[in-house]
Amino acid sequence: MAEALDRATREALRAAPDGTAGPCLASVHRGLEGPFSRYLRGQRKAAEALGLRFREEVIDPEEGPSGLVARVRALDQDGSVHGVLVEHPLPPPYDFSAAIGQLRAEKDVDGVGTENLGRLLTGRPGHAPAVCLAALAVARHYMLPIEGQPVAVVGRSGTVGLPLALLLTRRTPGPNATVTVAHSKTPDLARALSTSKTIFTCAGSPHLLTRTVVPEGASVVDIGLASMPDPSRPSGARMVGDADPDSLEGWARALSPVPGGVGPVTVAQLMWNTVSAWQTLTGRETPP
Amino acid sequence: MAEALDRATREALRAAPDGTAGPCLASVHRGLEGPFSRYLRGQRKAAEALGLRFREEVIDPEEGPSGLVARVRALDQDGSVHGVLVEHPLPPPYDFSAAIGQLRAEKDVDGVGTENLGRLLTGRPGHAPAVCLAALAVARHYMLPIEGQPVAVVGRSGTVGLPLALLLTRRTPGPNATVTVAHSKTPDLARALSTSKTIFTCAGSPHLLTRTVVPEGASVVDIGLASMPDPSRPSGARMVGDADPDSLEGWARALSPVPGGVGPVTVAQLMWNTVSAWQTLTGRETPP
Repeated sequence: MAEALDRATREALRAAPDGTAGPCLASVHRGLEGPFSRYLRGQRKAAEALGLRFREEVIDPEEGPSGLVARVRALDQDGSVHGVLVEHPLPPPYDFSAAIGQLRAEKDVDGVGTENLGRLLTGRPGHAPAVCLAALAVARHYMLPIEGQPVAVVGRSGTVGLPLALLLTRRTPGPNATVTVAHSKTPDLARALSTSKTIFTCAGSPHLLTRTVVPEGASVVDIGLASMPDPSRPSGARMVGDADPDSLEGWARALSPVPGGVGPVTVAQLMWNTVSAWQTLTGRETPP
Repeated sequence: MAEALDRATREALRAAPDGTAGPCLASVHRGLEGPFSRYLRGQRKAAEALGLRFREEVIDPEEGPSGLVARVRALDQDGSVHGVLVEHPLPPPYDFSAAIGQLRAEKDVDGVGTENLGRLLTGRPGHAPAVCLAALAVARHYMLPIEGQPVAVVGRSGTVGLPLALLLTRRTPGPNATVTVAHSKTPDLARALSTSKTIFTCAGSPHLLTRTVVPEGASVVDIGLASMPDPSRPSGARMVGDADPDSLEGWARALSPVPGGVGPVTVAQLMWNTVSAWQTLTGRETPP
């Protein structure tokens, strides 16, 4: 699916003039190793491969929360920038919500600002979170049962689980799914998932989904991402999803891998969203 | 529950100076009989009983959609108005979304604008739709099982079903419920509701919920409202909910009636939201 999105992005970029006028994505972060740095490396690499301009905006510790807000405000005003992404989650006293609130909806290409999230309910066009669109693209690519089907979302974050649940309930051409949202306070996860044909999981809890809780023959799209100690790796750790692949082998109909799976598609989606924002902001036609 | 909300509203109003400086709710509508007129009568009556100022702003047909937008913009700027409600749904070419988009979040006391809906996902404080808060108040007043329980919402409108589902998933002090959203395209409603302890229904489909689809012993909060022909009434019609009371009698644990039930609490909630908006906009303390 990343390939299909990348083709669309390249196609749209052919219309871009050379030099500084093409689409530009700015990624605002603290320059630290951590959960965001993996995503950041993916953005940099994809932008280079596709020919999008990519700006890293590093917030120094001395700049702090007010510096972050000011930087995002400046990027909103900067006509040469078409998409802005802000590292999240951010530890206090950084206020992610205040920072992203500086951004007009069109430039919020990760679809995590209040305006874009609200549009998921009102049906007005906007950017949906790239990771949610990527999870849906994975499900559709592998023809997993979601259209008109009972599906579950495990996880209720405001930037992943909840917007994904809203997208899944959407009317045609949306999936029209009957959606169950489960989470850490769900007393009986197996029962909550018992009727689901496809399960999207974004809890960030390694090995949460085993054959004990996943119904036999159900499909799992794994959006979870957590670090597990692994002495065999040079880094001493490896990234894992929410699903336990050993337990689900020969039990689930399908399981998207972590790493791989939804991750690379999210980056491709983000690049496409940036090109789409550039088209909107510069008055170009959006291709059908 | 309406009584408890009204007490809180009266308590807050004691701090209001006499005359034009107290809280004021403006209700913008087309002055026609229809689904909104019942709600409008309730607003007028409640405002009079509680001592809130209430302004009706009637949009003439000649003013049309642009007149509606201009009127809401003027009310947003009017410092003597603290809450604004716009008739909805509105038939085309009226653009409800464009009208409500003129309003700052604090004055959107029915919680149906994009900013307030988006805040349901980001967790920033804002107004949630009055009807959703009312349905939760009804469930809590009658101690229906929602806290940490499997519950269902039947209906996926952006102003009722979806925001209610988001509120139900909220962490403590929210209900922490495991929520299933079902709708007109749910292929097997009985199966979708089979694990639910409490069912909130807002489909606007009379007699949708019978003992065929509601599990025995489940509770039903009825937010549906539709008009049914009734030759025995002077008006020739009566208002009914989504639930079939005859079918659910002796089967459901509890059923909130329509009319009555959630309706009057919605009006009380709207009045409270207006007082709360007045407190915020005039820099008064919000009581705990």
